[in-house]
Amino acid sequence: MRIIDVNIREVGPRDGLQNEKEIVSTEAKIEWVNQLVKTGLPYIELTSFVHPKWIPALADASEVVKGVKKKEHVTFGALVPNEHGLERALEAGIDEIAVFLSTSETHNQKNINKTIDDTIPVLKKVVREAKSAGKSVRGYISTVFGCPYEGAVTVDKVLSISSQLMEMGVDEISLGDTIGVATPNQVVEIVKKVSGHIPLTNIAFHPHDTSGTALANVYAAYMLGVRAFDGSVGGLGGCPYAKGATGNLATEDMIYMFNGMKVETGVDLEQITACAVWIQKRLKRTLPSHRLQVAIAQKR
Amino acid sequence: MRIIDVNIREVGPRDGLQNEKEIVSTEAKIEWVNQLVKTGLPYIELTSFVHPKWIPALADASEVVKGVKKKEHVTFGALVPNEHGLERALEAGIDEIAVFLSTSETHNQKNINKTIDDTIPVLKKVVREAKSAGKSVRGYISTVFGCPYEGAVTVDKVLSISSQLMEMGVDEISLGDTIGVATPNQVVEIVKKVSGHIPLTNIAFHPHDTSGTALANVYAAYMLGVRAFDGSVGGLGGCPYAKGATGNLATEDMIYMFNGMKVETGVDLEQITACAVWIQKRLKRTLPSHRLQVAIAQKR
Repeated sequence: MRIIDVNIREVGPRDGLQNEKEIVSTEAKIEWVNQLVKTGLPYIELTSFVHPKWIPALADASEVVKGVKKKEHVTFGALVPNEHGLERALEAGIDEIAVFLSTSETHNQKNINKTIDDTIPVLKKVVREAKSAGKSVRGYISTVFGCPYEGAVTVDKVLSISSQLMEMGVDEISLGDTIGVATPNQVVEIVKKVSGHIPLTNIAFHPHDTSGTALANVYAAYMLGVRAFDGSVGGLGGCPYAKGATGNLATEDMIYMFNGMKVETGVDLEQITACAVWIQKRLKRTLPSHRLQVAIAQKR
Repeated sequence: MRIIDVNIREVGPRDGLQNEKEIVSTEAKIEWVNQLVKTGLPYIELTSFVHPKWIPALADASEVVKGVKKKEHVTFGALVPNEHGLERALEAGIDEIAVFLSTSETHNQKNINKTIDDTIPVLKKVVREAKSAGKSVRGYISTVFGCPYEGAVTVDKVLSISSQLMEMGVDEISLGDTIGVATPNQVVEIVKKVSGHIPLTNIAFHPHDTSGTALANVYAAYMLGVRAFDGSVGGLGGCPYAKGATGNLATEDMIYMFNGMKVETGVDLEQITACAVWIQKRLKRTLPSHRLQVAIAQKR
């Protein structure tokens, strides 16, 4: 049995690739995910079952889920916006599903095309059906630390959305710093408040490194007892709200920090960095990951 | 009177430019420093009085020091390797001088061309003369968190070097993560040990962001009571040990985090980001600063 202190949730194949300009072939995605599985990651979010017209880069969702090699230690997840998406995900044989909504009305409407109040009943149905199919469920909450349209978000709003997701039966909520504006004090404030009502074991943190604060925020959350963190290999994905800026935190940078802290993630740093090198070549752009650039520089 | 919670030591014009390939003209340096002064920075390290054959980019040290506009709120510093450098620095009218050595023998020999034991007496003389000329003195300690040649450095070695600098009369020691390998737990361990013997008010932290951990390390050091931090506008400087990787932490990223934490630095974030934009144009390469890239992306 593996002893893991923190659970790394790899979202690169979904959250990363959905925002990349360069389309990666289905075959390459499968090959890459098979490499990611070997790094020891406990969770890999493979794709999104939203309508292909919204995210053409992930139109091959079913093929990817069916194509990757299953391994006992890894849970494969996929984003699902509604019942139709859930049907497709279940048919493809996914292990876990992820639902999503925002804490801010404007972001939710721009992202999901529905008010928050209209989103909740859809998610309820999806979660109920997923659970009755024996699947675990993640709940992504966007704009927890600030909204690109509305600015600051109240802690009460975050708590209200979090509680509603937990009441639906979601197993883990992921607090998203969607635009990468969070600072450690804010992470402390929000995690303290939310964990007063929801067990820490059900809370994950989804950092973005747009302001360079991602690892500081991860450190602050870890010190409070958060034990699940989302990362994207290579820092794939960019920032959808500021083209050219950094988005997702690079998983390998997070693994590097946890290794230094003697916190076991179960993930091999060298192997996951190699996965970052591999996908950077395919995407033909310099990814923001620090350890990836160090690895390349040291090979020169 | 300004109330400042933490002191930002701007090292971009010296530590940044000395490692940039593109040479910046004396006139441009002076114009840029004059902009930096207006941001509210309390300390700016202007240049280095090492022999021009070692660092041609800073051969104009005297002209720069003489050329910048003095302001009451800002202390101008310069690096000085020996008595000859000190003479030149004093003649140019510098406010504060900075001496430097490493915790690791190999790095010290490669960097200064002397053993640590042979470096100490030289620094002693320089510090004594600088103090008798009424100047304050910083002491940079390199490779505190790891050496590119020797690997791990013992905490006892760091403490021994720190104590020797303090005994010479140095006013502030700056603990340098020269190759950007530190993680927050290590910062906690070293700062706790050193601050057991040297007052926290005499300790600064010099982070590098090579591994993406710089702000996590700054946060950890701040939480322990460190109140002086070195930054380089734009993240100027690169990493001398891994070409293409990130070196110095971008000052504006640090200001961003402290602003979020309601920690007063006295530095205007917008103005210092503008200084980063300005120098990036001159250097013709994309600098690693996060807030700089956000600023540029938002203007598109």
